[in-house]
Amino acid sequence: MTQPMSAMQQTMSAKQHAASQLPLKGLTVLEFSQYLAGPYAGLRLADLGARVIKIERPGSGDACRSLATKDLWVDGDSLLFHTINRNKESFCADLKSPHDLNAVRQLLAQADVMTHNFRPGVMEKIGLDYTSVKALNPQIIYGEVSGYGNEGPWVHKPGQDLLAQAVSGVGWLSGNRKQGPVPLGLAIADMLCGTHLAQGILAALVRRQRARKNGGAVVGAKVQASLLESMVDFQFEGLTTYLNNDRQLPDRSAIANAHAFLGAPYGIYQTKDHWIAISMGPLGPLAEALGCPAINKNDSEAFSQRDAIKTDLAKHLRTQTTDHWMTRLNAAAIWASEVVDYDQLLDHPAFKAVAMELQVSRPSQNGETSLTVNTTRCPLRINGQRFTSHKAAPRLGEDTDHIRNTLLANSTTAHSSQGETAQ
Amino acid sequence: MTQPMSAMQQTMSAKQHAASQLPLKGLTVLEFSQYLAGPYAGLRLADLGARVIKIERPGSGDACRSLATKDLWVDGDSLLFHTINRNKESFCADLKSPHDLNAVRQLLAQADVMTHNFRPGVMEKIGLDYTSVKALNPQIIYGEVSGYGNEGPWVHKPGQDLLAQAVSGVGWLSGNRKQGPVPLGLAIADMLCGTHLAQGILAALVRRQRARKNGGAVVGAKVQASLLESMVDFQFEGLTTYLNNDRQLPDRSAIANAHAFLGAPYGIYQTKDHWIAISMGPLGPLAEALGCPAINKNDSEAFSQRDAIKTDLAKHLRTQTTDHWMTRLNAAAIWASEVVDYDQLLDHPAFKAVAMELQVSRPSQNGETSLTVNTTRCPLRINGQRFTSHKAAPRLGEDTDHIRNTLLANSTTAHSSQGETAQ
Repeated sequence: MTQPMSAMQQTMSAKQHAASQLPLKGLTVLEFSQYLAGPYAGLRLADLGARVIKIERPGSGDACRSLATKDLWVDGDSLLFHTINRNKESFCADLKSPHDLNAVRQLLAQADVMTHNFRPGVMEKIGLDYTSVKALNPQIIYGEVSGYGNEGPWVHKPGQDLLAQAVSGVGWLSGNRKQGPVPLGLAIADMLCGTHLAQGILAALVRRQRARKNGGAVVGAKVQASLLESMVDFQFEGLTTYLNNDRQLPDRSAIANAHAFLGAPYGIYQTKDHWIAISMGPLGPLAEALGCPAINKNDSEAFSQRDAIKTDLAKHLRTQTTDHWMTRLNAAAIWASEVVDYDQLLDHPAFKAVAMELQVSRPSQNGETSLTVNTTRCPLRINGQRFTSHKAAPRLGEDTDHIRNTLLANSTTAHSSQGETAQ
Repeated sequence: MTQPMSAMQQTMSAKQHAASQLPLKGLTVLEFSQYLAGPYAGLRLADLGARVIKIERPGSGDACRSLATKDLWVDGDSLLFHTINRNKESFCADLKSPHDLNAVRQLLAQADVMTHNFRPGVMEKIGLDYTSVKALNPQIIYGEVSGYGNEGPWVHKPGQDLLAQAVSGVGWLSGNRKQGPVPLGLAIADMLCGTHLAQGILAALVRRQRARKNGGAVVGAKVQASLLESMVDFQFEGLTTYLNNDRQLPDRSAIANAHAFLGAPYGIYQTKDHWIAISMGPLGPLAEALGCPAINKNDSEAFSQRDAIKTDLAKHLRTQTTDHWMTRLNAAAIWASEVVDYDQLLDHPAFKAVAMELQVSRPSQNGETSLTVNTTRCPLRINGQRFTSHKAAPRLGEDTDHIRNTLLANSTTAHSSQGETAQ
């Protein structure tokens, strides 16, 4: 006779099923990367099921632990660190200590993937450059992030997001014509570079698996991404337009710019009570839906006359509320939207429908209450499943002992650097 | 006796070697996607070595063929289409015709991956939803892009980039406090969603390969990404800050905003002759390097006093040239950079060092000259190799006959829709 499952049993069963679906389950990643780009790649690999172990220097760890947004800290680490490093483990190692380096080499020999974002030359000095690591583990996928590649005059330029934006030309795409360069207000270069790195690592894993199937060849790889190359790729539409259009520089519209290469009405406009985004589409139906004959121009003029058209449109839209306009635009099936802020977004049923919110928890230590961070999940769904690990970012060195005991042979746990890893 | 290789033989050999390194060589992707997000995923998979075949409707094809930036066209297709679809093939099929649908089903039975971005419900009507396709090919990786997920009040909202930006809150991060929402001036939601889709597809391919190794189980997958979820993930730092900080909305600085959650000096400033980006770092050394005692504040005030500090800094930086300041900042190892535009970037030795420019060519047709498009390459390097296929975007239906003759059984080439595929 079978017993009906309890609600908890059903939940557990669903969770176990979800875990078994994780596509990268069974793969191990060693993350020597700090700050955002490399760790963002690691976060995604962890979300997809890989075991990601941060290799951190004793005492301070990933420098991101002490880099705060708005001076916000959780349990001794910046909230920023928590955001990027949830769902990972932490192993402390002083790469200048032969003892610790030996432990790291043993881990590398067993790992599937490693990532680092040291400046060019540093890994060679330590002896963990690709050639050396490949000798330990010919099948490893070695991921490397740099600011601007490995040669040329910017090799030693700091690989920081705003600076990568500054040298990529991207500042001339946002904002209106009379503004100076307007940077994108978040770490776009880091995030793109991290996603590209993860892509390259995954592609190399696919190749490794396929090579094994086809005869057992060992195929590791070195995968390199850089902030600069990612920012260039990000602008591939604009740069291709520039390159094939007599190198005419992007020219933002005077008002309501949202894309330097697209004509009116493409932009965000103020209404009587708020804001409205109007995307692409023919001008005639738009003019009719809004009751605005002034913008009823020929579509062939949408780019060349965009300032005049946008000025008329902006003036007209200010006379009524967003709701008023949205009703008319929706009725005419014109591509438009209200503009929301975080308050409106997070309370919106459409946001709740995608269930992007995620709570992660650090277990309590020494009897203290456990700590919870509210954050967002991996944006992918596989077989309808959302990946929602509730494991928080690790304390510095939290997993050192466990990893030494389970993955390392003949490890002596009494060592100088170990003392520093305790919280 | 061995002959020395000619220069051409050496080049061919190097090229063949490069091709054999392509990590996704041997995999086939069918791309039902249009516009940017899905095709951007396809572009990256093609760059990494997959054979990507666009499945396009006879007559008009991917709607992006007729969507132009700045009214620029090449050989009958928009330059934009060329940018996104280089290195792919084109197969024409009318999904409403049983004959064509049968051909597509045969292709699906042989494919490794497919992607589409039809609105929710469309693929079910055609009979190419995941359940149906899985029945044809249990191991296929089925990639799906939507605007806002598959349920909730935004399911039928147009999945367009600016609208996805509008409903994600991202407009409140760029520009200065007194501006309204400032959209990012490029298709950020599409690009992120495309990279996420490619990540998920690659992760599913890794799992499929590993499952085969471990006992031959057939493990396909449905991978879903959406513009909204990608935009939420993109803002994970800001949203986590908001969620753990009493839901305080992001507040841009009054001047030189570059990140609503970071303090002074983080921003781009006007100099006597141009612009300069100054990133993060302590205020004392910055004040000293610039000879600007007014900004020599305590670092704990860098966020709370950012408007005052940035105002003083902006005033000071306007008194000298970018070169003047950069010499001082570099000497003090402070994170700063000149700001470049596309002209300066593309002529810069540092840009030439990363070799991102790429020329692609469409072979001549009917004796006409072949057409060349200047664009940019895949941002990744694997084993030091850059991926530089020179294959241009396909003409509509360019590969239909070849694919019918080589991949389809008992195919009759005389069919009504075929006539429309010719150029």
